Amino acid sequence: MINGKTSLFGFVAHPAKHSRSPKMHNLSFDYWHINARYLAFDVAPDELPGAVAGIRSMGIVGVNLSMPFKQTVVPMLDEMTPRARRIKAVNTIKNDHGRLIGDSTDGAGLYQDLQSQGYHLAGKHVMILGAGGAGKAIIAAALDYDVASVTVFKRANQTYEQVVQWLADLAQQTPIPLNIRPYDDEAAMLAAVKASDLIINATNIGMTTAGVPLPPRVMAALTPQQTVYDVIYQPLETAFLRQAKALGCATHNGLGMLVWQGALAFKFWTGKDMPIAAVENAIMTTN
Amino acid sequence: MINGKTSLFGFVAHPAKHSRSPKMHNLSFDYWHINARYLAFDVAPDELPGAVAGIRSMGIVGVNLSMPFKQTVVPMLDEMTPRARRIKAVNTIKNDHGRLIGDSTDGAGLYQDLQSQGYHLAGKHVMILGAGGAGKAIIAAALDYDVASVTVFKRANQTYEQVVQWLADLAQQTPIPLNIRPYDDEAAMLAAVKASDLIINATNIGMTTAGVPLPPRVMAALTPQQTVYDVIYQPLETAFLRQAKALGCATHNGLGMLVWQGALAFKFWTGKDMPIAAVENAIMTTN
Repeated sequence: MINGKTSLFGFVAHPAKHSRSPKMHNLSFDYWHINARYLAFDVAPDELPGAVAGIRSMGIVGVNLSMPFKQTVVPMLDEMTPRARRIKAVNTIKNDHGRLIGDSTDGAGLYQDLQSQGYHLAGKHVMILGAGGAGKAIIAAALDYDVASVTVFKRANQTYEQVVQWLADLAQQTPIPLNIRPYDDEAAMLAAVKASDLIINATNIGMTTAGVPLPPRVMAALTPQQTVYDVIYQPLETAFLRQAKALGCATHNGLGMLVWQGALAFKFWTGKDMPIAAVENAIMTTN
Repeated sequence: MINGKTSLFGFVAHPAKHSRSPKMHNLSFDYWHINARYLAFDVAPDELPGAVAGIRSMGIVGVNLSMPFKQTVVPMLDEMTPRARRIKAVNTIKNDHGRLIGDSTDGAGLYQDLQSQGYHLAGKHVMILGAGGAGKAIIAAALDYDVASVTVFKRANQTYEQVVQWLADLAQQTPIPLNIRPYDDEAAMLAAVKASDLIINATNIGMTTAGVPLPPRVMAALTPQQTVYDVIYQPLETAFLRQAKALGCATHNGLGMLVWQGALAFKFWTGKDMPIAAVENAIMTTN
């Protein structure tokens, strides 16, 4: 029941109306009896400064951001968490009495999802396919989970050298070995798969087509030793996960990452744990 | 049930958390099955520009404003209704695709309340006590209701001449005679009471004390010919209304004005009628 003391949280993106975040967070506010509501705001790209002014001035307590604002909002913030600084992008803002603190919970959401299912990340060799927004968040968050190594495969396009440089800078901050190879280096990919414990698809291959992000000869190298994670959650089972499962791999779709990025934001804002199972059930069964 | 398409409305003031407007408007959205929520925003006085930027950029569809923003927001608007222009103050903004239109529904709220109870304003002589924010809104709105005359009593303090000038400017826009006299001119007050059909207390006398806004000799001139309206709604029956009722006057407290200023804002935003009786009941029985 909304009254004069109800706090506001929100999702800021363009488009925004499709978001499942209002459902996730409102369910969680109800669960904890927190007098707050979470709404979606479709903000035109050039209207971000005004929206941020509104967040400060109206005392909106917390927001999530998505495309196209995750990077453009950075200069408007007062502070960033280490994992957000590493990628110079945020998906979460906490308004601490007018001081805006940015966090990036996407990558950490993936690892929290795995940990919540009993997977131990410490000492694991991690292979990450793709270094776009999701990929970089997952690479950067790996530094907080004591993994043994991170090997990235990325298309050799015009942003390849930028990512090489970004990883070199990141390597200054961590003892964890960070490697990058071009996507078309199939020999390197095959070797990496064999050396990996956890293989993460952070490309969108498999979202709209039945394609898989590894070539057939590399796919064939998957064994029950490997855990495979696909950040895609529509469909819940991509061709990549289906084939990996047939080869005996443990598999995980992106739904848990979606819920856990929200859970980490919720914790950052409220200090409370999101009721994970109830939230997963709610966003899977309704729209 | 909030989802990604839920629209936001709000109350912007300082303080704001005491407001009954969230209850009024959320109940009305529910009544009409409109997918929208109304929250209160406590905005610091120097943060108004940021809040208005937020209203525009985040697509907040409608807001009410109260102290201390009713006048300071005016230069930030794109357009104003005639009754808002007359007092250079607004309590309602409609965001028409980024274009902010200001309205003043406080004064009209009083007259709509009377009309809804079968009172005919056309041809009536109206006496208004006080010319502060509420008083000016009630004076200015009277021009839209075809009354026979308006006579204002105001304390002869440092703002008296400003109000005299404001009324003179207003008189250029209407054939309705507008008069003003100092509050301590008891002879004029007595004559005005005798000549009036409707006497409105727009001062705060009676809100925190048992005082009445008319001196004893003037009170004694009230008869069943006069209708008495007190803008105060806490308490629901002021000493003024109690004494006027004892003298046979029809009396009205400010609760109807409160509800109707909201109903006019709701209509301005949604085109729909607020469910008056349900709203009155809700704001009287709960807090």
